[in-house]
Amino acid sequence: MRALRYYGKEDVRIDEVPEQELKPGTVRVKLAWNGICGSDLHIYFGGPIPPMPEPGHVHPVSQEGLPLVFGHEFSGTVVEVGEGVKGIKPGDAVAVEPLLVDGTCAACQAGHYNACVNMGFIGISGGGGGLADSIVVESRWAHPVGDLPLDQAAMIEPLSVAYHAVKYSGAKAGDVVLIGGAGPIGLLAAASLKALGATVIISELSAKRKEKALSSGVADYVFDPSKDDVVAKAMELTDGRGVDVAIDAAGVQVVLNTLCDALKVRGVLQLVALYGKDPTYDMGKVMFKELRVQGSVGYANDHEEVIKLLQDGKIDLEPFITSRIGVEDIVEKGYVELRDHADEQVKILVHM
Amino acid sequence: MRALRYYGKEDVRIDEVPEQELKPGTVRVKLAWNGICGSDLHIYFGGPIPPMPEPGHVHPVSQEGLPLVFGHEFSGTVVEVGEGVKGIKPGDAVAVEPLLVDGTCAACQAGHYNACVNMGFIGISGGGGGLADSIVVESRWAHPVGDLPLDQAAMIEPLSVAYHAVKYSGAKAGDVVLIGGAGPIGLLAAASLKALGATVIISELSAKRKEKALSSGVADYVFDPSKDDVVAKAMELTDGRGVDVAIDAAGVQVVLNTLCDALKVRGVLQLVALYGKDPTYDMGKVMFKELRVQGSVGYANDHEEVIKLLQDGKIDLEPFITSRIGVEDIVEKGYVELRDHADEQVKILVHM
Repeated sequence: MRALRYYGKEDVRIDEVPEQELKPGTVRVKLAWNGICGSDLHIYFGGPIPPMPEPGHVHPVSQEGLPLVFGHEFSGTVVEVGEGVKGIKPGDAVAVEPLLVDGTCAACQAGHYNACVNMGFIGISGGGGGLADSIVVESRWAHPVGDLPLDQAAMIEPLSVAYHAVKYSGAKAGDVVLIGGAGPIGLLAAASLKALGATVIISELSAKRKEKALSSGVADYVFDPSKDDVVAKAMELTDGRGVDVAIDAAGVQVVLNTLCDALKVRGVLQLVALYGKDPTYDMGKVMFKELRVQGSVGYANDHEEVIKLLQDGKIDLEPFITSRIGVEDIVEKGYVELRDHADEQVKILVHM
Repeated sequence: MRALRYYGKEDVRIDEVPEQELKPGTVRVKLAWNGICGSDLHIYFGGPIPPMPEPGHVHPVSQEGLPLVFGHEFSGTVVEVGEGVKGIKPGDAVAVEPLLVDGTCAACQAGHYNACVNMGFIGISGGGGGLADSIVVESRWAHPVGDLPLDQAAMIEPLSVAYHAVKYSGAKAGDVVLIGGAGPIGLLAAASLKALGATVIISELSAKRKEKALSSGVADYVFDPSKDDVVAKAMELTDGRGVDVAIDAAGVQVVLNTLCDALKVRGVLQLVALYGKDPTYDMGKVMFKELRVQGSVGYANDHEEVIKLLQDGKIDLEPFITSRIGVEDIVEKGYVELRDHADEQVKILVHM
């Protein structure tokens, strides 16, 4: 079969590779769509970053090394099921939760497999990937999506990242939530929050992202920190109380400071963005408002809930699919486009 | 009456001042003991810091400026009650919750009066103080302590700081908790945790503080980060899981890092120490373990619970009273002693 494999910095190739073996407990999925993620960009332009193994090494769970099939946000149709597989059958449309976990560490045992000490991603750390004709995965990672279109199903992975963070934050109906940054994860967090019944405020500099936040219907208010006093606006919208929850989907020190200022006493600052440089916390703000700052990584036991929200029409992913391309165009129309025109795109989906 | 008043850096004087006026809703307390707090030291040797008003200014709640009666950890006996006061009578031994709050801000309205936007302390920001013959306070701040000795009652204030942080952390019976630092607040947090039924590990450099943590019975394990691998020890004691809660009672970057490393996935890092310099968070640790980092300040609605723990014998404060002095010796045997021999003292109590 064909597969896009990652060899190293700025080196991906469409190769002919053998199909993976169907083992007991696994399913074979004919792949439909694969979204491009920010971490794919970092890896494409910058070289391997964990949990991708370094050249010459293998990932502890997959036991595979470079070159590796690329792509971890993907959907497809089950074509074959292995021995002992229950609850899923050929013909089922699925979104894959692309995880490689050891299942034995303390985090896995506690149900937080997203924090597995050996955590890897299918499509980054081995185990095949979304940019191939097919993939074989353990059946527990293949989530049937019913009638959902397969292009939207490919976005269940990033939506689950955002939803997981929102759920951990404790945000609920009636809460006022400020999101810093309207990139893909910020927008999907907003969509999750709207689905829960929260009021969503977004702070974003880019005119095009602001427009998307409004036109997609996921933000109630969008402010521009270069023009608006975002903290004052947040205070105004909460009768001077401060927002209940803030979601950091930017990973930038100045945004972090704004979020801390806008939060109410005992408000939750939910982190979902990664930082290029570790930030400093103004401990006066954290201490004297008794803020709760929470990290979040990936997802664990979230896909079923996310799929239900989509099936119930609580979230519409269509506005966030901004481009559909073939795999042969992935460099120019995918990676380069996202690097150079990040604010014009939300999600670019790739078809084999 | 006599009162120790703070005039500025290294300038406190025993003055003759008028007694405060007994108004409706207030009680007059004949003062017994007053503990010296770390913030008293900072103010004595360094000059006014918030919420003490700058020279020439007044605190927004007390409307008073320097010189101000000093001391905010104190106990005494009610000698007179104002009109309308209920539930407290002359002869009652009390611990005073020494707060000045406006009662109208969003935090006060939400019950988090410790985070009042205009929060001040009696004994720092005006309203009299513990280092005087008597004080008049609103009756809601005077908590009857029953038969508790008045010297121990003077320590209810710092114990409430520690207990408030422990309670916010969510630590419960059976949890394993690592405390960074065995200064007064670290030790009192340990005492609160033992009272709740948690297993307490303390990391501390000072030999004398380590000894106190063990001899007072509030620590199950004490490790020295200069000799022991504290993270490895914590992992060993939790079967590799990591501690449930970590209490930062040190306010030092290297301790913060150790606590983050020792925490389990979704563990709580409860901050109670103040930082001289804002720390940097290793976001890899915060994100990939989904840690919860929580600020804590003062106390709110904690005194009754703390007094009950003392009355039930769940906490014994006697081991932490390391010196008793008269007010005339407060500089040499109080401030200077604590500055020069901090690790030999826990709490120095001052009598008028």
